[in-house]
Amino acid sequence: MLNFSFQNTTEIHFGEGQIKQISKQIPKTAKVLVTYGGGSIKSNGVYDQVSEALSDHTWFEFSGIEPNPSYDTLMKSLDIIKEQDIDFLLAVGGGSVVDGTKFIAAAALFEGDDPWDFVTKGQPINQAIPMACVLTLPATGSESNTGGVVSRDGNKLPFFSPLVRPLFAVLDPAVTLSLSERQVGNGVVDAFVHTIEQYLTYSVNGKVQDRFAEGLLHTLIEEGPKALAAETKSDLEVRANIMWAATMALNGLIGAGVPQDWATHMIGHELTAGHGIDHARTLSIVLPAVMKTCREAKKEKLLQYAERIWNITDGDDSAKIDRAIELTEEFFTTMKVPTRLSHVDLGEADIDLLIEKLTQHGMVKLGEHGAVTPDVSREILIAAL
Amino acid sequence: MLNFSFQNTTEIHFGEGQIKQISKQIPKTAKVLVTYGGGSIKSNGVYDQVSEALSDHTWFEFSGIEPNPSYDTLMKSLDIIKEQDIDFLLAVGGGSVVDGTKFIAAAALFEGDDPWDFVTKGQPINQAIPMACVLTLPATGSESNTGGVVSRDGNKLPFFSPLVRPLFAVLDPAVTLSLSERQVGNGVVDAFVHTIEQYLTYSVNGKVQDRFAEGLLHTLIEEGPKALAAETKSDLEVRANIMWAATMALNGLIGAGVPQDWATHMIGHELTAGHGIDHARTLSIVLPAVMKTCREAKKEKLLQYAERIWNITDGDDSAKIDRAIELTEEFFTTMKVPTRLSHVDLGEADIDLLIEKLTQHGMVKLGEHGAVTPDVSREILIAAL
Repeated sequence: MLNFSFQNTTEIHFGEGQIKQISKQIPKTAKVLVTYGGGSIKSNGVYDQVSEALSDHTWFEFSGIEPNPSYDTLMKSLDIIKEQDIDFLLAVGGGSVVDGTKFIAAAALFEGDDPWDFVTKGQPINQAIPMACVLTLPATGSESNTGGVVSRDGNKLPFFSPLVRPLFAVLDPAVTLSLSERQVGNGVVDAFVHTIEQYLTYSVNGKVQDRFAEGLLHTLIEEGPKALAAETKSDLEVRANIMWAATMALNGLIGAGVPQDWATHMIGHELTAGHGIDHARTLSIVLPAVMKTCREAKKEKLLQYAERIWNITDGDDSAKIDRAIELTEEFFTTMKVPTRLSHVDLGEADIDLLIEKLTQHGMVKLGEHGAVTPDVSREILIAAL
Repeated sequence: MLNFSFQNTTEIHFGEGQIKQISKQIPKTAKVLVTYGGGSIKSNGVYDQVSEALSDHTWFEFSGIEPNPSYDTLMKSLDIIKEQDIDFLLAVGGGSVVDGTKFIAAAALFEGDDPWDFVTKGQPINQAIPMACVLTLPATGSESNTGGVVSRDGNKLPFFSPLVRPLFAVLDPAVTLSLSERQVGNGVVDAFVHTIEQYLTYSVNGKVQDRFAEGLLHTLIEEGPKALAAETKSDLEVRANIMWAATMALNGLIGAGVPQDWATHMIGHELTAGHGIDHARTLSIVLPAVMKTCREAKKEKLLQYAERIWNITDGDDSAKIDRAIELTEEFFTTMKVPTRLSHVDLGEADIDLLIEKLTQHGMVKLGEHGAVTPDVSREILIAAL
């Protein structure tokens, strides 16, 4: 196991009916900005529950945060924050709304020229407006971690600060019952790949971390398809298990003390930025290709994954790994996401520009060994054709 | 899954050499009281490491906190705290030192007549001196949770407050290499039973919680015996895995959203209070008897435990459960702890008084269903003879 420091201060309020907790959790004296996306929270009852819970608070709203939230949209919120002296942000939505609100929290109090500089130039985030969230889509883990991803002019990039970690997160699985099949499939795949990025590297004999990661993978493989199947899609227990698994997949715990990869994510971000493909669908395309291309470096963990997750015991090592990759792709297909570039109408001709952007964004030594150079990323994209 | 709120704010610094972190983690202006036990930290180098790290701090020390820390000992610390205006406590030791320091933290600022009242009379803990710890014995989980256990006049009782949760905990597995075989065995068994208390109840379909608990059990079963075996007892990776598993076993996570039992612990406390038996050794005696006595109420989870932890697939349900209990006892025996009252020279004649004390302490509706009445506790103790 590697040395590590780990802390996660977010208070989780989990379960049906927990949205009412926000009335106690947000200081009564706060001036609150409720941030959300395209308005689905108005049709599924979440907006009403939040309004009800905030009936004794002073609050305003900022809507229109889109999937892969854009700098331009987010910056528009700064006017109302200034005008109304907002001192608490409540994100109500999925990972994009939470990520976008994290950006707003830091941007509103940023002392440099342009908040984009803490994303691209490593300028420090020294202060942020306190924020919390009501999660409506289990997927990104943003509800209890310190990271966010924002997009600007075809660039989709991450930023991090402990100051943007939500103070609390409400996770009510009942609000996820109204999600579309596409959102559910994307969410399960996103959480699955988050887990894999922190698990499928090289072994440092971190037994707790491995077992926990495997526990999340088993849960997502067992429950994900049930959330799409007609007879079980309304089962609240299924939704609860997916929601808790997605939070645990990226709250820092399973990655503490072990190597991490994230090549799949960084390559995937270019597919989203350049071609507008849903985040999770970039992961389901890239991950199998990463497994194939990096199979030697990941051999020991691929074999452990094959045996413990997919019960593969027959055949030689190579056959076991092949089968594990095949079953991973089959699982993605069950979740109705694509597994090839061709499934999203991309081909060999698109690879050059993707590699160019990846290089331009400094993503030239990816993976747990820093060995995924642009040339290796090209191999990965070719394997994903 | 049951509704829950979960938060764990303790910052963990894990790995060899991490004790030096305390110099940054404790405010330079603090007046620190370092608390410890019988002095083993002076022979194993931990005291020196702590002294070195605190060389720029103002600090004092209070030693002599015994296993099953006593009210009388702990109260003696209040003089130096008052005299020196102590405003930070650093516990250096195992679970008893951490528990005892939690009591001191709350007792020093307690506004009622007698701090014992927050243990026995439910009086609130409204303030506590900030505390942190350097853990030297992986076992109790006290390093990152809100509970402690103290003893007074033959009464061993728990107390809880978020105000006594350590701000940070240093976990350096290297310092555990000097532990005695008895301490190692006890620690592994303690962590194992903590996990079982939150797992072996009735199913609420909490898949993440079940998988995490099973991951901890697997880790302890795999690594525990290695920490006792001549050829692997100096393996730092083994010690690291045990240490992280013990913390995760009682930091609130695996118990969030699922029923909990704790009958084994409460009955075990009477064995310690009345007969001075090591905490873990009371658990290894009581747990198999709880499994036997409550096998109907716990049937579903016992079968899951049999299959997932011990790979038992043959035989009818009853045979599977018998075998799982047998293997649990064999594991305890491998860890060199007793599994019967007769192993610690207790017999049927001792049961009456144990039940009397249990009743006197209000432990009359134990277990996940509250169904473990004094009569059932008697059955359990008889099954443990």
